[in-house]
Amino acid sequence: MTVDLAALSTAVREAVAECRERVAALHAELPRNQLVVWTAGNVSERVPGADLFVIKPSGVSYDELDAATMVVCDLGGNKIEDGTAERLQPSSDTAAHAYVYRHMPEVGGVVHTHSTYATAWAARGEPVPCVLTMMADEFGGDIPVGPFALIGDDSIGRGIVETLRESRSPAVLMRNHGPFTVGRDARAAVKAAVMCEEVARTVHIARQLGEPTPIPAADVDALFARYQQVYGQRGER
Amino acid sequence: MTVDLAALSTAVREAVAECRERVAALHAELPRNQLVVWTAGNVSERVPGADLFVIKPSGVSYDELDAATMVVCDLGGNKIEDGTAERLQPSSDTAAHAYVYRHMPEVGGVVHTHSTYATAWAARGEPVPCVLTMMADEFGGDIPVGPFALIGDDSIGRGIVETLRESRSPAVLMRNHGPFTVGRDARAAVKAAVMCEEVARTVHIARQLGEPTPIPAADVDALFARYQQVYGQRGER
Amino acid sequence: MTVDLAALSTAVREAVAECRERVAALHAELPRNQLVVWTAGNVSERVPGADLFVIKPSGVSYDELDAATMVVCDLGGNKIEDGTAERLQPSSDTAAHAYVYRHMPEVGGVVHTHSTYATAWAARGEPVPCVLTMMADEFGGDIPVGPFALIGDDSIGRGIVETLRESRSPAVLMRNHGPFTVGRDARAAVKAAVMCEEVARTVHIARQLGEPTPIPAADVDALFARYQQVYGQRGER
Amino acid sequence: MTVDLAALSTAVREAVAECRERVAALHAELPRNQLVVWTAGNVSERVPGADLFVIKPSGVSYDELDAATMVVCDLGGNKIEDGTAERLQPSSDTAAHAYVYRHMPEVGGVVHTHSTYATAWAARGEPVPCVLTMMADEFGGDIPVGPFALIGDDSIGRGIVETLRESRSPAVLMRNHGPFTVGRDARAAVKAAVMCEEVARTVHIARQLGEPTPIPAADVDALFARYQQVYGQRGER
Repeated sequence: MTVDLAALSTAVREAVAECRERVAALHAELPRNQLVVWTAGNVSERVPGADLFVIKPSGVSYDELDAATMVVCDLGGNKIEDGTAERLQPSSDTAAHAYVYRHMPEVGGVVHTHSTYATAWAARGEPVPCVLTMMADEFGGDIPVGPFALIGDDSIGRGIVETLRESRSPAVLMRNHGPFTVGRDARAAVKAAVMCEEVARTVHIARQLGEPTPIPAADVDALFARYQQVYGQRGER
Repeated sequence: MTVDLAALSTAVREAVAECRERVAALHAELPRNQLVVWTAGNVSERVPGADLFVIKPSGVSYDELDAATMVVCDLGGNKIEDGTAERLQPSSDTAAHAYVYRHMPEVGGVVHTHSTYATAWAARGEPVPCVLTMMADEFGGDIPVGPFALIGDDSIGRGIVETLRESRSPAVLMRNHGPFTVGRDARAAVKAAVMCEEVARTVHIARQLGEPTPIPAADVDALFARYQQVYGQRGER
Repeated sequence: MTVDLAALSTAVREAVAECRERVAALHAELPRNQLVVWTAGNVSERVPGADLFVIKPSGVSYDELDAATMVVCDLGGNKIEDGTAERLQPSSDTAAHAYVYRHMPEVGGVVHTHSTYATAWAARGEPVPCVLTMMADEFGGDIPVGPFALIGDDSIGRGIVETLRESRSPAVLMRNHGPFTVGRDARAAVKAAVMCEEVARTVHIARQLGEPTPIPAADVDALFARYQQVYGQRGER
Repeated sequence: MTVDLAALSTAVREAVAECRERVAALHAELPRNQLVVWTAGNVSERVPGADLFVIKPSGVSYDELDAATMVVCDLGGNKIEDGTAERLQPSSDTAAHAYVYRHMPEVGGVVHTHSTYATAWAARGEPVPCVLTMMADEFGGDIPVGPFALIGDDSIGRGIVETLRESRSPAVLMRNHGPFTVGRDARAAVKAAVMCEEVARTVHIARQLGEPTPIPAADVDALFARYQQVYGQRGER
């Protein structure tokens, strides 16, 4: 049974419209931060107050994206009828996003890229070790590796959720594939994607000429706790 | 005997004009995706319904290209008389493009660059191994290496065609030279050039700190089959 | 006791206003020179003729910065009351900047980034060796490494000052953290941050394929002395 | 004895004015092609029909350069009196440029940068081996290394000239310093600087994972001869 947006309340329809705007605008951060080439990355956000999320259409270039081209899906990953973008299919990664929203109620945004350095660690199946204070701040430890999983069923989503549950990191490197990141909203998930690539790159470069000095676990804990509480303006991050 | 555009049908002349527009616009993707420096890369497209193709003029910078500066050639690689751009010679790689169009009727677009990471693999004469899901999607396996060939006759074109015929990959790394990519049209060949550089770079970086995990051949096949069928909007890729 | 800007002289208030303009404008150099991602770097400048400095607000993106959003602090690192930006908290690195201004009266500007290559050397706790003439010019020798220090008290500031006092370098790589640079004003500190990343990157790349040739100490001294005296226009650098 | 521009013929003054325009515009290619940071690179061009050349002022950022800020020098490297830019001193590398113009009459343009990969080879004192067809085309062989030389007399200029005389390459890597390139005019020298960095980077990356395949000397000769004769439009390169 497909949901029809026209049958939903005005409040939900307004929330969908605002969510479309945010998600469309945040896609510009992917090429701007050099996380993607061509059409190979996507952002989604849970619609506040509804069992819906908004996601990138499949195979459309970042230049052509706007609020109207975003696709609305239910938590089963099915495109809902909304008139606005009926010709467009959602990202081929939609099932993975939907699985995360179903199983992690605290997550309000999901980002997937094949950003180069994070994907290189994923190709070796190796976690990024926590050897930078900014990594301790953002990720609270290593960035973990999730299983190899084929697209087409819940394997990718399940691999993401099971890996993230055993970690404080908002990022997981899916083996031979690339990073998925989560956040309380789409903006936080995009920030995690940007920081994931940055630390993957910096630690890679550090490792090329020797071994980075580890940070003691107690210091990682202290940095993570402080950053999650005090950074930014009045609770914003 | 040189073809004269004025002697061709109105339909062909219109097809040529549209093809000039597309090819000129697609050249902007080469510097934008950091595949080229100075004037060192070119795009061509077969004119639908005619034994002609449109290609970049030689030695002209990307800023100065527009539809009028594109050069029209027959499948022998000879510039045809068309009035519009008579002062400009076609790319010095024109013979290689022409050979591909003569021997691969399914190909509608060809791109040549010296993009850095792809060319680095070509300098070692080493194929890029298929260790990423996005590589399985796009290339269906390793990106193969073609022979060393001097410019000036059909050696480069023959090397491209013979190598591509033994592979599912739309990209070939010509030894000590650089990548050539093909597609059903110029846009698809440009996408293949962008993805070729991206996976060449990612696998290079993965290999710098160890060995990437291989993807089983059956999984490569499954990913390739799925991607070729379902990605994008209504058959677009 | 918090300082109130309104209680200060007109001359100081004008100096603060000009300083806000300079510091806001210089923040644009951080992303432009690829020294930062997201909000992870900051510039400050001592207000001429006052025991105050101007610094970036915490967690605000570079696009949103202007003179009005800059935060004014006393040399204890406390935000002063100035009406203009009362909702914004200063950078979480403010205590480190303040410590430098208190203990190095010759310093008029401080910059902190996590620029990739400099941070990679910091992660290994390894100084950048002086093997380039432009390094001799700007840094007068190796770029030194400072101690590992947690944020939250004077540890970072003290580590910066103690390390810089034993060196001619205007840059220090704080272990597992990133570079801090100083200058007679904010512009000079930004230049040092740009040059620090550039030489960290170039020497890294040189070292990847072998050992760079050292420059004899007497030549380093001669280059440094000459550059500090004669480069640029009439005493500007 | 200082030359005074006002005492020269109208034809020379017009040639100077045109040369100022060209050299100012070409400086934009340095940051655009990522060959420089801050103010660390310079372009000069011999004034046709006069024993003069036009060069960048010292320590001025690329954004602030225009025809009026360019500095005119005689072949001794002395700034001439020309009214237009009397407050600005020429680049600190002016003596090296002047030496090249005095000793290589066929050279009409000189470029100096510290571009990253070329400088990395220079730091190890290692020539870039000719393992790419585009290197054979442009450089006709390896890019050679010149001696270590201090700034302040003719040492750098002499090192450039002596090294270039034994090579077909328009680029030389001055040890621990960086590349200098020459051309028949400033544009050709800028092209050589761009290509020098590109091949230095590509061969570096190729070497990171193994040994590139050499190109036989006879093939290098054939490629160089062909490219110097036929590339581009009507003798332009």
